[in-house]
Amino acid sequence: MTRLWNAPDDFPDEMLAGFVAASGRWIRQVPGGVVRSTRDPRPTVSVVIGGGSGHYPAFGGLVGPGLAHGAAVGNPFSSPSARQVESVARAAHQGRGVLLSYGNYAGDVLHFSEAEAALRADGIDCRTVRVTDDIFSAPADRADQRRGIAGDFTVFRIAGAAAAAGLGLDAVESLASRANARTRSMGVAFSGCNLPGVDEPLFTVPDGRMAIGLGIHGEPGIAEVDLPTADGLAQLLVERLLADEEVPLPDGPSSARVVALLNGLGSVKYEELYVVYRRVAELLDVAGVVVADPHVGEYCTSFDMAGVSLTLLWLDDELERLWFTPADTPAFRTGSVRTSLPRPAAAASTERPDGPLPRASAESRQLAARIVTALDAGHAAIDAAAEELGRIDAVAGDGDHGVGMRRGTRAASHAAAAVAQRGAGASTTLNAAADAWSDKAGGTSGAIWGVILRAVGRELGDEADPTAEDLVRGLNRAVEGVTSYGKATVGDKTLVDALVPLADTFAAAVGAGADPALAWSKAAAAATRAAAATADLLPRMGRARTHGERSQGTPDPGAVSLAVLARVVEQSLSPVD
Amino acid sequence: MTRLWNAPDDFPDEMLAGFVAASGRWIRQVPGGVVRSTRDPRPTVSVVIGGGSGHYPAFGGLVGPGLAHGAAVGNPFSSPSARQVESVARAAHQGRGVLLSYGNYAGDVLHFSEAEAALRADGIDCRTVRVTDDIFSAPADRADQRRGIAGDFTVFRIAGAAAAAGLGLDAVESLASRANARTRSMGVAFSGCNLPGVDEPLFTVPDGRMAIGLGIHGEPGIAEVDLPTADGLAQLLVERLLADEEVPLPDGPSSARVVALLNGLGSVKYEELYVVYRRVAELLDVAGVVVADPHVGEYCTSFDMAGVSLTLLWLDDELERLWFTPADTPAFRTGSVRTSLPRPAAAASTERPDGPLPRASAESRQLAARIVTALDAGHAAIDAAAEELGRIDAVAGDGDHGVGMRRGTRAASHAAAAVAQRGAGASTTLNAAADAWSDKAGGTSGAIWGVILRAVGRELGDEADPTAEDLVRGLNRAVEGVTSYGKATVGDKTLVDALVPLADTFAAAVGAGADPALAWSKAAAAATRAAAATADLLPRMGRARTHGERSQGTPDPGAVSLAVLARVVEQSLSPVD
Repeated sequence: MTRLWNAPDDFPDEMLAGFVAASGRWIRQVPGGVVRSTRDPRPTVSVVIGGGSGHYPAFGGLVGPGLAHGAAVGNPFSSPSARQVESVARAAHQGRGVLLSYGNYAGDVLHFSEAEAALRADGIDCRTVRVTDDIFSAPADRADQRRGIAGDFTVFRIAGAAAAAGLGLDAVESLASRANARTRSMGVAFSGCNLPGVDEPLFTVPDGRMAIGLGIHGEPGIAEVDLPTADGLAQLLVERLLADEEVPLPDGPSSARVVALLNGLGSVKYEELYVVYRRVAELLDVAGVVVADPHVGEYCTSFDMAGVSLTLLWLDDELERLWFTPADTPAFRTGSVRTSLPRPAAAASTERPDGPLPRASAESRQLAARIVTALDAGHAAIDAAAEELGRIDAVAGDGDHGVGMRRGTRAASHAAAAVAQRGAGASTTLNAAADAWSDKAGGTSGAIWGVILRAVGRELGDEADPTAEDLVRGLNRAVEGVTSYGKATVGDKTLVDALVPLADTFAAAVGAGADPALAWSKAAAAATRAAAATADLLPRMGRARTHGERSQGTPDPGAVSLAVLARVVEQSLSPVD
Repeated sequence: MTRLWNAPDDFPDEMLAGFVAASGRWIRQVPGGVVRSTRDPRPTVSVVIGGGSGHYPAFGGLVGPGLAHGAAVGNPFSSPSARQVESVARAAHQGRGVLLSYGNYAGDVLHFSEAEAALRADGIDCRTVRVTDDIFSAPADRADQRRGIAGDFTVFRIAGAAAAAGLGLDAVESLASRANARTRSMGVAFSGCNLPGVDEPLFTVPDGRMAIGLGIHGEPGIAEVDLPTADGLAQLLVERLLADEEVPLPDGPSSARVVALLNGLGSVKYEELYVVYRRVAELLDVAGVVVADPHVGEYCTSFDMAGVSLTLLWLDDELERLWFTPADTPAFRTGSVRTSLPRPAAAASTERPDGPLPRASAESRQLAARIVTALDAGHAAIDAAAEELGRIDAVAGDGDHGVGMRRGTRAASHAAAAVAQRGAGASTTLNAAADAWSDKAGGTSGAIWGVILRAVGRELGDEADPTAEDLVRGLNRAVEGVTSYGKATVGDKTLVDALVPLADTFAAAVGAGADPALAWSKAAAAATRAAAATADLLPRMGRARTHGERSQGTPDPGAVSLAVLARVVEQSLSPVD
């Protein structure tokens, strides 16, 4: 279990500060993550990686010559926000374009895609290669829906080596994509891990049993079996990886060549890994597969989860040449890297400074103050519910929903208070809250709540004294934004299942002439009923797809959060008079 | 807990095989451990390290240019045998002498000292630097009695760098010794670990508590406190290390400079370590200590023990220059190491080949057959008692006594059977058993049992039909050998407490004219009583010195083993007719 922290909410920032303090030879901190503290003799394509923290050396430990140029560092097991990714990419950019690469998870896809769009809109050529190496997260005919696990490392390494070789963005993207297509992993787990400040483990595996295909955030696997011997595990790993469809096994007389990476998830240690690797090497040899470069150690962890994964990168000549070039990062060093030039220390901050505020009417400023009060109360309510939210999220997800919502509402309420105090109107206040929420909470829910607050803010404006109809329109825009952003519809067991009844009920009641407070009260009740009813649904979105059955009977945590906040609004604030 | 193995007894060999399979770029296997698979352009002093396995990257992971030349690899948490150390040192020797360096534990001291004597007798100049960095294992005025923990790494690194610089053996020894004198560590632990095949954890720490000063084999610490925050732990580590006597703090205006190594013992993971390191760096800064080179990660583990240690190497100009030279090993790489030349693949084996057997009389061959039978029965009895032996050993020691005795008796019985079948007499058979026992069991008890069997064998000879008086002399020689070798006397809570009554009672009964079988029966009864009585003693030997109180009430496992074997001899074999 994770034991050492100060305040759990400070864990990500303090972890990053310690990492930066220990790793100045390779990296420096920028808003949203880290970039190299050195520079190449000539500008190259910049490889920007990232994801939630808790997976060290993924992702910050893989920044340095021959590997990544920057890493966006999210909260534990939670995607970095779009703003974080954008900030890191801007700091890493050297004028030759950016390759974004990350594991294929719903939250990361949302945030990195938004960052990619923002960078492109600003004229920075930007491409994406998502890592999809986990063979048990989707069948081979839907390989693009697979999750990314320790294969992150091989894909990032090829991308970084291609960039270091001076290749252009097209070639770097194409090689990273080829490396991903030729990387396969499978993982097993024996016990879960605890997130900092969370009492319950993310998941458990019974003593003496082993979960097959379990994901790096505890996503349920495909089967549970008795704990095998070390040799039995090696056989399982090798057989399943070689059996995956379209593995590029040799069809001629020449042997296939691979990079083999036997990865410990946290508390399965080196000696055990070597006992397993001994048999892995024998079995690959028997299968006619030559291990061109073996790696045994910790390349993608999940705090102290007890688990193991085996990754094979099927080499071709070009990939093998790139693989054996030098690299020098906090966690991975190979070959002789030319001593890099230190980068100028004082890099311009990429945080947008606080600009002058848009003009606001007295009525809108009054509404802003009530929004601040509601956000405060919302944070308190989420704080009280956080443990329960985490618990129900752990059934099908990664258990971080409560922590993320707590961080998000706290940041939103602080940011809103700061601009409201400076005289901001309702729209500006909600926008500030939206940015802070999305930025600090990270993950899918952070992005979604950013969309909701911004949509409502747009309709409320900074100058008008908004009407109930404005809020109706705002909620409708929020529904449009969320469904377009997250690609979910009603029935997919997401927050949409509560948001749509909220918006529809409110619109109907206002249309029928109800007092706005009464209309909201009916809407909040509808959202609460709908959130509870998500317990009967099977999830269809994102990574939840692979383990639908397990979460039936438990409501969707995002829908429950929305209902909690709708009731806070009902109690503390009649949103329009 | 350790989960992945095949047969627990095969764990060490299979671990080593996997390590060799994964690490051929740096190391190759030799009898007893590993040496570099590369060679330097010019011969250098050879730095040979070693210790029990279970501490990866200590010790095999630290072999390569800029660090060690070879590592003797013992069983889990158990010293390599003298033969292993000697074999690795011979394979690593380049004609310029050998520096042996290892953590200061009783078993390691016994075996490495014996190897040193053998190498010197053979004309190889050989020196020893024992690592004594653990400030809580003895007070500063007895610093030479302290244990070695993660400070192994800094001492080995300086020794390896000095050797790589081409310095002579005097200078390498002196620099390693200086590095040890300037290295201080302290560790804490939150939970124990299980050895492969052992059901009970080596020790436990209550939930929410932290043991201060706990050793890397679970040796009890000096205090148990409530689990602190990450910052609280950082403060404890830094304050205690700076307060240790004779720490070379700066006395002039210049700042002290250190290498700081924050080490995870196994399942305290990177993100937590970075949170702690953040505060360590701040506190060292406040104290005027400059961290010239920070390291955060796993440098000396204890399987998956949850624990943390902080090591400070107080640099001077010469140590700092050496510290920043390149190194390239499986687990530690820094700077640009010149591509090393591969070593000729087929190195001569250092195992002594089976020579022709000494002539043996028919009577002595008959006795040899009975010795084989007794060793077989002894192995069966130890096998049945192994769990209980491990349990009582875990109270004050490292819990490996049962596993070591099982390995030792098995190897001894196999080796004895092999030479007896070829026609060996009693002495040769016992010598073969002694070598195999010491070699395969490792640890202190392996060495001691080697001494006992060899002493008895010497008196029994290969040609005589030995008398009860020969066995009396053999047992007396065994007592002399064991007390001189292990520096223990009666009352120190060791095997000596049972061996002396065995020898004395047998001698007295034979002297009084008793039938040898009856005499042995009395002697075995005396040994059994004496072994049980060790429960009332406080230990005075080796590392047990620091935690005597805890083991009062539990008998010494070595004494109990001896009693078990004495009863086996009583039942299955009247040793002389």
